[in-house]
Amino acid sequence: MRILVQKFGGTSVKDLACMREVLKKVLRECERGYKLVVVLSARAGETNRLLALAQEWSATPDPAECDSLVSTGEQVSTALFTMLLKDCGVRARSLLAFQAPIITDEVYGKARISTFDQKRLLDMLQEYDVLVMAGFQGITRDERITTLGRGGSDTSAVAVAAALSAERCDIYTDVDGVYTTDPNLCSDARKLERISYDEMLEMASMGAKVLEIRSVEFAKKYSVPVQVRSTFTDAAGTMLTKEDKTMEHVLVSGIAYDKDQARITLRSVPDKPGVAAGIFGPLSAAGVTVDMIIQNSSQEGLTDITFTVSRKELGKALAVVEKVRLELHGMEVLHDAAVCKVSIIGVGMRNHSGVAAQAFEALCKENINIMLISTSEIKISCLIEEKYAELAVRVLHEAFGLSKSPLSA
Amino acid sequence: MRILVQKFGGTSVKDLACMREVLKKVLRECERGYKLVVVLSARAGETNRLLALAQEWSATPDPAECDSLVSTGEQVSTALFTMLLKDCGVRARSLLAFQAPIITDEVYGKARISTFDQKRLLDMLQEYDVLVMAGFQGITRDERITTLGRGGSDTSAVAVAAALSAERCDIYTDVDGVYTTDPNLCSDARKLERISYDEMLEMASMGAKVLEIRSVEFAKKYSVPVQVRSTFTDAAGTMLTKEDKTMEHVLVSGIAYDKDQARITLRSVPDKPGVAAGIFGPLSAAGVTVDMIIQNSSQEGLTDITFTVSRKELGKALAVVEKVRLELHGMEVLHDAAVCKVSIIGVGMRNHSGVAAQAFEALCKENINIMLISTSEIKISCLIEEKYAELAVRVLHEAFGLSKSPLSA
Repeated sequence: MRILVQKFGGTSVKDLACMREVLKKVLRECERGYKLVVVLSARAGETNRLLALAQEWSATPDPAECDSLVSTGEQVSTALFTMLLKDCGVRARSLLAFQAPIITDEVYGKARISTFDQKRLLDMLQEYDVLVMAGFQGITRDERITTLGRGGSDTSAVAVAAALSAERCDIYTDVDGVYTTDPNLCSDARKLERISYDEMLEMASMGAKVLEIRSVEFAKKYSVPVQVRSTFTDAAGTMLTKEDKTMEHVLVSGIAYDKDQARITLRSVPDKPGVAAGIFGPLSAAGVTVDMIIQNSSQEGLTDITFTVSRKELGKALAVVEKVRLELHGMEVLHDAAVCKVSIIGVGMRNHSGVAAQAFEALCKENINIMLISTSEIKISCLIEEKYAELAVRVLHEAFGLSKSPLSA
Repeated sequence: MRILVQKFGGTSVKDLACMREVLKKVLRECERGYKLVVVLSARAGETNRLLALAQEWSATPDPAECDSLVSTGEQVSTALFTMLLKDCGVRARSLLAFQAPIITDEVYGKARISTFDQKRLLDMLQEYDVLVMAGFQGITRDERITTLGRGGSDTSAVAVAAALSAERCDIYTDVDGVYTTDPNLCSDARKLERISYDEMLEMASMGAKVLEIRSVEFAKKYSVPVQVRSTFTDAAGTMLTKEDKTMEHVLVSGIAYDKDQARITLRSVPDKPGVAAGIFGPLSAAGVTVDMIIQNSSQEGLTDITFTVSRKELGKALAVVEKVRLELHGMEVLHDAAVCKVSIIGVGMRNHSGVAAQAFEALCKENINIMLISTSEIKISCLIEEKYAELAVRVLHEAFGLSKSPLSA
């Protein structure tokens, strides 16, 4: 049995006309002899409509009831789409989380999938040619409905593909693949034929939001071949695969950027044990997610600490820091929300020095000052002034020759 | 454990303001020490909205998918109402058909409840004070979602009350009880304190549509004490109970009428075996529901047969009859859609003659011609010209002294 998983997002199923396009994609793969699991999101706008209802009913809606409420969005889209399939004579049925069942933990609103009943799904695929599965939803061992959080349908799709050892998991979206950088910023951005899971993780977390990051982690963990492709064209998309030798020949795969950054600098912090914990402990307790952290070497027992947070959490972060300041005499707090993080990503840089130097030189040529630098094995991130964001992306894209296919080079 | 079941219809839960009224009714019974199962319908208009979606997607929507679709209406209302309860600190949870579970047969769109998991529900009532149950929906043994048909939430409520041996099942609606006749027609119609299941069955099937008829059958079968009462007042409603001695002292309990009637008369039908079957067999095959049937004694080997059908099925019925006419030479077909059925109902008439005579005399006094008569043990129905409907109801209500309470008589 050759199994394919297809996932379609909210804009792909928003009305009858869109669903008819989805229908073509599904029927095409049926004709090729695949058994299909088609994972659908709620129709565009529906989840927000339901969440607004919850907010009208309660200032702090019960999380379990909220999940039961919003999961109806996917129930509606799967029922409607299955009607279309049945009208075409396809042996199909809708499949809700409790029917699959898709077992999750009990973290309502952001549950994690724990198990699938593989045998049951395979049995159903004997009886049906297409299972139309509600994405985003799960069920606890106690049979309460959960949801997987925003973008959870991607995770549903990759998880079911892993459970069934599907030949491929096609994620249909409104872009036609993963690009070397944002095509809106850089006209010669190139669609990648392939990208490794790790690179995709860095690209996704950097704001190149094509795929929900948890779905990429899932795909990596179970080596699920995932293809990102467009609902509105027939072109092949970008394949997410395991890293292989040929990938290492490519130093840099893409340039990502993230404008949702704000910088906080603490000047003249006493350089003694426990101070860093005294700052980042309260930030964590207040639910502030800290991204980059830099501490310079100290002078005369005093040091500077700089970190970045999401812009919408800047106010909350400053309030926490202010409390710390009152305790640490002489400390000064500076902040700046007009900053941007630009990142160079590629598994190839792991075995090659010189990528960082080449990047800094390219930025320097344009007089772009680098405020912070942070690196991982396959990524170099620089914090720069926001006004230089687009220029920096174009300069780096050019410096690493990303507009040219590595195969033709 | 004292258990009470409360059921609220779509108009009672249509918005936040209405749900707050429902909340008061629920909290009042909680304070009295009851454990509650609160059965909710979808918010008013929601089921029709979902059915319209199904019709947009498919001319003949798959019945199983249609049930999965429309059952979301109750899922939304139960989640929202449970949020309100939780905000009041009540130990509550929503309960969908698959969670209860409410097992039904596989007749999608009009399923019948087969079993409840009584023990599981009782266990939940140990943990929770209020279970907010989605009415109208069920689940097959195969875990597919079904619906119980229009008015199915009444049946859900009575069935769960039977399964839990609840002290009472309160059906909250937009009228405050069952009346001796339609108060819109007859200003001195009186609210009944009690009515037997059998009388209620006749009242309901006659068009006094307070309760869904299947829920009354269920209540009768399991002797569930059901109270029909208003969401918008605090007054006691009408109790449906087993028939008892005191009821037999009352000859007539109520007058019902049904304007959804059309009459078809077949003249000069050959009076020989198999002719009736040759007429009503094809009608049944065509899905036409026949109500009253009268055949007069024959003359010269020919007879007349008259029957009534719902007005919206008159065209279909005439088409069937026309085919029969072509086979039975010489038969003539007459029809009349301007007719109305008026019924006199009461368990007391079982042991008393004279009710029929009294009714015919009352109608005769007003020169109202009776076209057809049909009787059961506790009911006498007369088909009359539609224009006399209101007059006939008032005349009969007066003739049997229904405006006066039998206790004060």
